[in-house]
Amino acid sequence: MRIKKALQALEEKGLKCGIVLKPENIYYLAGFFPSAFCALVLEEDPRLFVSDMDKKLASDIDLDVKPIENFKKGFRPGYKKIGIEKGYATVRFYEKYLRDREIFDLDFINDMRKVKDKFEIRQIKDALKLTARGMEIAKEMIDAKRYTEKEIAAGVEHFFKSRAGSAFEPIIACGGNSAIPHHRPSNKIADRDPVIVDMGARVNHYSSDITRTFGFSDSSDIFLAVRDAQEAGIRECRAGNEVKNVDAAVRGVLKEYGFECDFLHSAGHGLGLDVHDPPALKKDAEGIFEKGMVVSVEPGVYRDVGVRIEDMVIVGRRPEVISKNIAAGIGAD
Amino acid sequence: MRIKKALQALEEKGLKCGIVLKPENIYYLAGFFPSAFCALVLEEDPRLFVSDMDKKLASDIDLDVKPIENFKKGFRPGYKKIGIEKGYATVRFYEKYLRDREIFDLDFINDMRKVKDKFEIRQIKDALKLTARGMEIAKEMIDAKRYTEKEIAAGVEHFFKSRAGSAFEPIIACGGNSAIPHHRPSNKIADRDPVIVDMGARVNHYSSDITRTFGFSDSSDIFLAVRDAQEAGIRECRAGNEVKNVDAAVRGVLKEYGFECDFLHSAGHGLGLDVHDPPALKKDAEGIFEKGMVVSVEPGVYRDVGVRIEDMVIVGRRPEVISKNIAAGIGAD
Repeated sequence: MRIKKALQALEEKGLKCGIVLKPENIYYLAGFFPSAFCALVLEEDPRLFVSDMDKKLASDIDLDVKPIENFKKGFRPGYKKIGIEKGYATVRFYEKYLRDREIFDLDFINDMRKVKDKFEIRQIKDALKLTARGMEIAKEMIDAKRYTEKEIAAGVEHFFKSRAGSAFEPIIACGGNSAIPHHRPSNKIADRDPVIVDMGARVNHYSSDITRTFGFSDSSDIFLAVRDAQEAGIRECRAGNEVKNVDAAVRGVLKEYGFECDFLHSAGHGLGLDVHDPPALKKDAEGIFEKGMVVSVEPGVYRDVGVRIEDMVIVGRRPEVISKNIAAGIGAD
Repeated sequence: MRIKKALQALEEKGLKCGIVLKPENIYYLAGFFPSAFCALVLEEDPRLFVSDMDKKLASDIDLDVKPIENFKKGFRPGYKKIGIEKGYATVRFYEKYLRDREIFDLDFINDMRKVKDKFEIRQIKDALKLTARGMEIAKEMIDAKRYTEKEIAAGVEHFFKSRAGSAFEPIIACGGNSAIPHHRPSNKIADRDPVIVDMGARVNHYSSDITRTFGFSDSSDIFLAVRDAQEAGIRECRAGNEVKNVDAAVRGVLKEYGFECDFLHSAGHGLGLDVHDPPALKKDAEGIFEKGMVVSVEPGVYRDVGVRIEDMVIVGRRPEVISKNIAAGIGAD
């Protein structure tokens, strides 16, 4: 059971208590996804503090479930050292509950989440199946040349959410908008090339994340650079290899083509309960790839217009690309 | 200009520097809504630190715009006392940048945001117009008795997002699900009464939030209790009155009906850039209502099934209910 593993990891750090606040981590450890403020206290007898609004949802959880008021009023454990998610817990939370205590980061939860088990990989693959259809919907709407970016994004999300969920608001970025990596869909008709489409479905809390660029010549330098960079990045997604090698490989290829300064983000990220799950495929990433990690590799070049390609990979002895059947976009057909 | 007001408020607190991280607050003060990590440093010459991905979006901002790397590497101002949003900044941020400094809460930004100006009220009213149509769409789909909760929620969001934005994922909760205030739409056909529908559109970053309950007898005790509680709550939304009186009035009526223990959340909340904007209409709310605040009043009773009604009010000498034209649901027609 994951909670047991977490308690062991806590003990190895010399801690007897950890407070988990991030909903995704609570879900990962306890199987319960809170809708309001909630705290999972990892200690000898773990307790889950939930809001009144969530108490019905939490009623079948195999843990000691308490009302959150008791946490608020009564959280006074005798522990001097406490683990918290430093990247999630706010300063206000710290001041209210943890002043005068020594605090440590519960980073081992991120480590636990990196390698996906069979159930998790099945959810991610199911999310990819929906994404394949979502990409077709986007393609059809773009080809019609009469829908706005917003309408296309809403059409894709409607499909995802009718069946399961959407991992994030799709990015539909046409013409000059494609030069903005996080462009928010506008009321502009998507009738100018290129069109970047970045989307993902969510199934049982697990996300997919795929990008295609439509209407860009696949013999242009920019396209070739992004494609070659992605291939080079994907090749690095091997168990035993250093995680940072992906970004280095991607950046190396883009540099050869002269586009290094037009690459505005990192090479990719893990996928799971978060759209940006560990590990981050950053320049300064630490750690080694392990079998069963699931990541996306997404180089992009942004000048007057942009090109980005993003695919998902399961790390193994060799990288297993699990999204190449989503073929719409440049280079397809 | 809002930044000037913020600088004055900072000075009144004896501070020469404040770091704003929350996107809604950055947008409120600087007119720029970041899509990635971003920091607005309030000081004599305010600076906005943005990620590479946002630099094109921020290019027309009337502020000194810097790359976020400079913040990360070079944020070492000589200030001993610094203001931050304690309820938003993480412990990690604090440890990375603010250790050994005395920190203060930038709560005055919340205070500034409470009273809405004309532009803001126009956006909220525009969001309400979309919500009126969204509620009709939900009603039509519920009446058809062949759509799942998910399909109805997705249909409403599709409408909102095609035109503007959605404030949050609509709640469609039918039958026993209506007893869960934050129910997540399921794959169950919404063919059993009652059906709680809680939705809001977002226009230019401003949110609406309306709830109706369909298919519940409007002569039942529960309905009468919730309706009377809402009316009592709304009556308290008057300039000069104490904010906490709303929750007291709502709770008082529900108590008379014997439903006090079945009310699982607070009486309402402000609306604006956040769906839960200041002021919170909580039991222990501090402060006085001012003309131009915009709030929702949303009592609910949750037993085997639930009933909730939520309307929006502009605070003035008298409360101005701005959503009563959204008439679908119990008591309508």
